[in-house]
Amino acid sequence: MKTKNLASSILTSVFLGLVSMGSALAYESCHKSKWGPNDQLGALNNITQDNIIAASKLIKQGKKMAMAIETNTKTPAFPPRTYSMTIVRPGQENGQTLGNTKLSYHDDILQSWVGIGTQLDGLGHIGIDNVFYNCTPGIEVTGVSGLKKFGIETFPGVATRAVLLDMTALMGKDIIPEGTPFNQPEIEAALKRQGNMKINKGDVVIFYTGWHKLLGVDDKRNGAAHPGLGVQGARYLANLGVAMIGSDTWGLEVVPFENEGQVFHVHQILLAEFGVFILENVVAQQAIKDGVYEGMITVGQHRTTGSVQAIVNPIFVY
Amino acid sequence: MKTKNLASSILTSVFLGLVSMGSALAYESCHKSKWGPNDQLGALNNITQDNIIAASKLIKQGKKMAMAIETNTKTPAFPPRTYSMTIVRPGQENGQTLGNTKLSYHDDILQSWVGIGTQLDGLGHIGIDNVFYNCTPGIEVTGVSGLKKFGIETFPGVATRAVLLDMTALMGKDIIPEGTPFNQPEIEAALKRQGNMKINKGDVVIFYTGWHKLLGVDDKRNGAAHPGLGVQGARYLANLGVAMIGSDTWGLEVVPFENEGQVFHVHQILLAEFGVFILENVVAQQAIKDGVYEGMITVGQHRTTGSVQAIVNPIFVY
Amino acid sequence: MKTKNLASSILTSVFLGLVSMGSALAYESCHKSKWGPNDQLGALNNITQDNIIAASKLIKQGKKMAMAIETNTKTPAFPPRTYSMTIVRPGQENGQTLGNTKLSYHDDILQSWVGIGTQLDGLGHIGIDNVFYNCTPGIEVTGVSGLKKFGIETFPGVATRAVLLDMTALMGKDIIPEGTPFNQPEIEAALKRQGNMKINKGDVVIFYTGWHKLLGVDDKRNGAAHPGLGVQGARYLANLGVAMIGSDTWGLEVVPFENEGQVFHVHQILLAEFGVFILENVVAQQAIKDGVYEGMITVGQHRTTGSVQAIVNPIFVY
Amino acid sequence: MKTKNLASSILTSVFLGLVSMGSALAYESCHKSKWGPNDQLGALNNITQDNIIAASKLIKQGKKMAMAIETNTKTPAFPPRTYSMTIVRPGQENGQTLGNTKLSYHDDILQSWVGIGTQLDGLGHIGIDNVFYNCTPGIEVTGVSGLKKFGIETFPGVATRAVLLDMTALMGKDIIPEGTPFNQPEIEAALKRQGNMKINKGDVVIFYTGWHKLLGVDDKRNGAAHPGLGVQGARYLANLGVAMIGSDTWGLEVVPFENEGQVFHVHQILLAEFGVFILENVVAQQAIKDGVYEGMITVGQHRTTGSVQAIVNPIFVY
Repeated sequence: MKTKNLASSILTSVFLGLVSMGSALAYESCHKSKWGPNDQLGALNNITQDNIIAASKLIKQGKKMAMAIETNTKTPAFPPRTYSMTIVRPGQENGQTLGNTKLSYHDDILQSWVGIGTQLDGLGHIGIDNVFYNCTPGIEVTGVSGLKKFGIETFPGVATRAVLLDMTALMGKDIIPEGTPFNQPEIEAALKRQGNMKINKGDVVIFYTGWHKLLGVDDKRNGAAHPGLGVQGARYLANLGVAMIGSDTWGLEVVPFENEGQVFHVHQILLAEFGVFILENVVAQQAIKDGVYEGMITVGQHRTTGSVQAIVNPIFVY
Repeated sequence: MKTKNLASSILTSVFLGLVSMGSALAYESCHKSKWGPNDQLGALNNITQDNIIAASKLIKQGKKMAMAIETNTKTPAFPPRTYSMTIVRPGQENGQTLGNTKLSYHDDILQSWVGIGTQLDGLGHIGIDNVFYNCTPGIEVTGVSGLKKFGIETFPGVATRAVLLDMTALMGKDIIPEGTPFNQPEIEAALKRQGNMKINKGDVVIFYTGWHKLLGVDDKRNGAAHPGLGVQGARYLANLGVAMIGSDTWGLEVVPFENEGQVFHVHQILLAEFGVFILENVVAQQAIKDGVYEGMITVGQHRTTGSVQAIVNPIFVY
Repeated sequence: MKTKNLASSILTSVFLGLVSMGSALAYESCHKSKWGPNDQLGALNNITQDNIIAASKLIKQGKKMAMAIETNTKTPAFPPRTYSMTIVRPGQENGQTLGNTKLSYHDDILQSWVGIGTQLDGLGHIGIDNVFYNCTPGIEVTGVSGLKKFGIETFPGVATRAVLLDMTALMGKDIIPEGTPFNQPEIEAALKRQGNMKINKGDVVIFYTGWHKLLGVDDKRNGAAHPGLGVQGARYLANLGVAMIGSDTWGLEVVPFENEGQVFHVHQILLAEFGVFILENVVAQQAIKDGVYEGMITVGQHRTTGSVQAIVNPIFVY
Repeated sequence: MKTKNLASSILTSVFLGLVSMGSALAYESCHKSKWGPNDQLGALNNITQDNIIAASKLIKQGKKMAMAIETNTKTPAFPPRTYSMTIVRPGQENGQTLGNTKLSYHDDILQSWVGIGTQLDGLGHIGIDNVFYNCTPGIEVTGVSGLKKFGIETFPGVATRAVLLDMTALMGKDIIPEGTPFNQPEIEAALKRQGNMKINKGDVVIFYTGWHKLLGVDDKRNGAAHPGLGVQGARYLANLGVAMIGSDTWGLEVVPFENEGQVFHVHQILLAEFGVFILENVVAQQAIKDGVYEGMITVGQHRTTGSVQAIVNPIFVY
């Protein structure tokens, strides 16, 4: 899978990066949370009861859209992420059953990197020069058996309005070409095309690029790059107070990066600077086909203590 | 690799071997799905667009309740289930960062049995004498690297009305004693106490027993038994057409079982006979405290192909 | 945790369930160990102190040959076996070190099917109709978290004479073609060619076929089949009292099998009938090149309780 | 288990250690291998064909001693190391068998930290201020999916003379008390007591302290500390040219450390400075009981590419 090339280029930049040690600068330039030194919710703080009530009013057709792709050994994964599942039937050797009820059962064991498939990036996922969200030094975050801070168990679950941005209709392409950045002009154009929609504080914004159509069809192209959010667009949305941002791509932000060497800068802006949670590989195709661009979204995660990310299936109701 | 062919030929002989198996009785007594031979959704078929619209009208306060407990090494687990999480920082040895943006990042690897914490039981979890939902023989379900049928990836996500049954208020106990069965009389009494509520086709029913309060406080008592749904109550609710049933206990059904030796008979009735999905360790305390007994529930799962279960965090909006 | 009690009661019912199983025939036709009902060593019982002393006299050049190939993600593996390794540096985030000694350290986590690479097959690996070595029913062997009997921890370690059979020189081929069976005539011819060697009771016999040369070169051909021991040859060697038999192939016995449908019959004869341990992917190239066909072999395994197999590196000294 | 306290104290020292960043000094003071810049064998280079022949002459009784303890969930492990084993029977649901031969089989999946039980420490395990053996910077060693250098697959296997040092007989104690250091005086005294033995270049030295007798008996005491090699003793043996050093304790070197804060300094001296491989939890009780103090030892490892350590079972023949 072409992501290996992506990985190689990163490994190269590792050696370049080696010259820059010491984090003094980083600590000066880090961003304190406006919600206080103990805040772990970030932009989710922008979701109010009014947001939820307003979102509920968007449920008109009574339809539900599950936004997850499948996670398995064939799902394109950022190297060296791997996936393995094992099914067992404890105590049922020889086909015997358990008890008078002749119980038969399966159990399952997951041995997998979490960041495969449709995923939620927690605030502990990405930092800037070993400083994470809310000016938290890496030493207070990293733990070999689970994050000490910003573990995915702190994600409170989300229910709010989601705005879907159909970039394919805007740009008249079934699949937006790799490397296409989405910044303020593209975002505003998409909103205008969708009936002069507005993005509100506390909303979740989901980009629809058609890129998910490459899954299993052209994994090599899929893994090598994709269209996505740009640096300016990230700051623009974050300043609007959005709670989460997602896309139907594996990395949300545009790849190749707008500026060479600025490795996952959009991730840094959203997670480390603004505390905006990220959704990847979330597919809005069904609603888009129905011509629906807003609804209520809910996100609930496997609440595994200390996880960095979660494999999720956001539910969009409209 | 060609060894796969070798394996396939072996798998073929497995199917030949099937003729020599005897669960004739089981096949006669199994329950065909009313939704056809290919149905994998079971009682979720009862959820209509009207259910979803009606559920949305229950969102009045604009509150959201995440219903999951945490999953970690301390979470009581049915033996021999174990949990392990590993955090890594690829390419960041010596504290170096990646690229000009000085990227730092964490990744996570989950090595865990899935059925730990707040979980969704898929239709492939439990069978009767090696026959699973919709009269499906185990041979068509079991796969060592993932279920061949009823894998959790087939769970379509749920949005519908949830009815919370506060058994603690009904019985005047902060924590309902272990071994207390909930059958039609208890269920109807709880509904009556909560303002003559009705359970509708397509609803999710959640029992609140206070049992979750034992977590980390008295794990020994918690693990040994708990109150829960009885055999008659399971059939009663299933016949009402409920889509899912859950509780704030690790096993939903009453333990010890009502009849000794009838191992997880309620699980068999719900999953194998009626196709009613099960939620375990789902906690409704917040809404109960608010005196709210109905709202919209959404359930989205990690869509890991072939999984039997999922660790979930249902979102209840009211 | 008390749930263990719950589990135990279920396991009890498993044994009750056993009566309803039918492998009567298998039990009649099974082979009792000549070393008694509790024997778990099988043909290793044939190794005496005289064997070891005699083997030590074969050490003439003072050379050592490690016989293992590498186990990693590229090693051909019988499906669905997979391999994964993770390296961690606990407590060393930001590149900090531990203590005044500025300790830096790596640790490693192995998540792998055991039967990949150079492996030792324990007596619990293969059975006949759910009956394993020494007429042991599967129910007494299988345990979901480790074999209850014949776990690799019972392997006592081996030091004895090893006889290398160079089938490539015998047949005048650099790589013996797939499907070539080795039975008594081929074995005796190889011994005769190597100076009328004799195989003694307690010896380890290793076939050299050159097949290992396909590793990483033609994995497809390698995985599809290989030359190896035949059914008659297996009984012949077992009756000579050899302690172990190995080869430089992934399955030791000839593939395709001599008789279609007789799946791994040689494994059954060696492991289940005679208690002869099996070594796979053991490479004797160095000694063969030196024209040496006998020496002292030692086999020590990772002594992981309940493992079926072990990834080993036999040491041949000559 | 008390090792948790040990871990805590180490975590404390992590924070202390944090003040000292930068490796310039380390690079100046690192030790180049006398066997060249590409050497990965270290002191194993001292083993010659003469060593092996001489060792073979020590095989007199024809006895074999396997030196490994078992590795399982009960084996004391340095935090946060964990162990898990899963047994599967692919394609055998309902008790069916494979083919006409009615094949039944078990397979096993190991999910475990490698450093549990009887282990071989590779040269990549321990470094000094991020510099490893042969002045190799950590950046050239660490790889998240396997060490880039000094992976255990590079261990060539060993056959040579082993000298057993019975410290219990020397000190007249059945179990040597924790914190007892072994330095030149103790080592020479033990050799003298054992008939004025000499340690030769290329030998493996094994300390017998009786500490293994605490396994499963007093794991708390076992995990908290133990007797072992001191800093001076380590340099003394390394300068004698020994190939490997082992003991029947989990950490070889004396714990608590001779000087507080000098975390695993003996490991650093042996692995990073001299390239002397380490064996832990190797038990020589059988030979000691027989009054035998020298013999031939062989060490073969699971040749898993990129592993830091290996779980081994050294075979001692005498």
